[in-house]
Amino acid sequence: MTAHPAATAAMLAIGDELLSGRTKDKNIGHLAELLTLAGIDLKEVRIIGDEPHFIADTLNTLRRSYDYVFTSGGIGPTHDDLTADAVAAAFGLPIGEHPDAVDILSDYYAGRGLEFTAARRRMTRTPEGAILIENPVSKAPGFRVDNVFVMAGVPQIFQAMLGNVMATLPAGQAIRSVAIPCPFGEGDIGDPLRSLSQSHPGVSIGSYPKFDGDSYSTEIVLRSRDDRALDSAAAAVSAMLDDLRQARPATAG
Amino acid sequence: MTAHPAATAAMLAIGDELLSGRTKDKNIGHLAELLTLAGIDLKEVRIIGDEPHFIADTLNTLRRSYDYVFTSGGIGPTHDDLTADAVAAAFGLPIGEHPDAVDILSDYYAGRGLEFTAARRRMTRTPEGAILIENPVSKAPGFRVDNVFVMAGVPQIFQAMLGNVMATLPAGQAIRSVAIPCPFGEGDIGDPLRSLSQSHPGVSIGSYPKFDGDSYSTEIVLRSRDDRALDSAAAAVSAMLDDLRQARPATAG
Repeated sequence: MTAHPAATAAMLAIGDELLSGRTKDKNIGHLAELLTLAGIDLKEVRIIGDEPHFIADTLNTLRRSYDYVFTSGGIGPTHDDLTADAVAAAFGLPIGEHPDAVDILSDYYAGRGLEFTAARRRMTRTPEGAILIENPVSKAPGFRVDNVFVMAGVPQIFQAMLGNVMATLPAGQAIRSVAIPCPFGEGDIGDPLRSLSQSHPGVSIGSYPKFDGDSYSTEIVLRSRDDRALDSAAAAVSAMLDDLRQARPATAG
Repeated sequence: MTAHPAATAAMLAIGDELLSGRTKDKNIGHLAELLTLAGIDLKEVRIIGDEPHFIADTLNTLRRSYDYVFTSGGIGPTHDDLTADAVAAAFGLPIGEHPDAVDILSDYYAGRGLEFTAARRRMTRTPEGAILIENPVSKAPGFRVDNVFVMAGVPQIFQAMLGNVMATLPAGQAIRSVAIPCPFGEGDIGDPLRSLSQSHPGVSIGSYPKFDGDSYSTEIVLRSRDDRALDSAAAAVSAMLDDLRQARPATAG
């Protein structure tokens, strides 16, 4: 079974607070999981600060290299929210208030008895031709330009926006994975696992060490879009572990 | 008070498991915090998979752009641990067993009654001329080549190695920061904060929205290497918040 090559993606997380350590990113892992389920290969993530030229340059590199780019952060109402302008600059597009966004937010703030301040109006600005991404949490929308999806950094809002986005993307053939717990450390399995990996070229075989402070174990993870190749490799790993158990019941790193 | 420009740094986190979502990175935030304390500016983070050419190319970009590069992941004993080879390729250096690393690991495994397998010997391989980074947790060392620090991905080991590395770096003048809790949402403070930011050019002013599921608040964070400018900006923010409290005691996004 030969699949189409999977679509590729990158993520660009934007915010000085991520680079200072003040905020710990929670969006990268969430996006990674959803893309994996959708059969889209996340190839690269970058985290950069609130610097408009650097955002635009980085975005141009990523959007030309991958099928999709997902951004988080920098679309709020304050002066350090520079992502929308940077996206417009990257595409060479003018930026202005999106009429649908103005309607959504003016209704929202009127309903809450709040002033629709200039700061709040900033959240309606998108590059010309952008398609809005609905924000069910706090209404101020994200937006899509070409293959770039611009979303908020607050995790609840990022996740809500991403849910709307994922529903619009064609699902690829998801990679199936099999995780095999292994009581031996990587030092014990490294040599047999290397030859096993070479004899199963259609399957990606990773080993992830776990250290509980005293002894090691490993999770061996096999991934493939080819079910038959995956099953065959998984059987070979299990046989390898049986051999090791007979040879040395003890374990260490 | 004029400081020397701060040293700059990038991080390169390596591992397919980070991009699939199977493993959530815990090292980026830790490095970010330590660099901030040390007065070193973390400018960029990238996460990429276990692809040797891509690792080497990315590393070459980063090491030429920043004063320091910190890597995590891919230095274990298995076939998917490709970082040491990629670092050697990036620098155009031959790779071989580091004699001190061989001594450390042969003693360690002998002491635990374990075979020093070919897989375990892989962990002694470094680019020629590399300086070892001690690993107090599981002994297999990291290493430094020029301005690149190559460390393990397992968080306990990354943190232990990084502790050793940080002690060797000249500390810059740390950025001082002041965090001011603000009961108003960003939409309320965005306009006055923008003009305040423009009138205090030596101070970086960020605002970080918090959403508890119902209402918004904000943390306003001021950063500067200039103590006097920082105190002046902080006083201006406090005065701004007093004005807002008198104008409207309520709060929302």
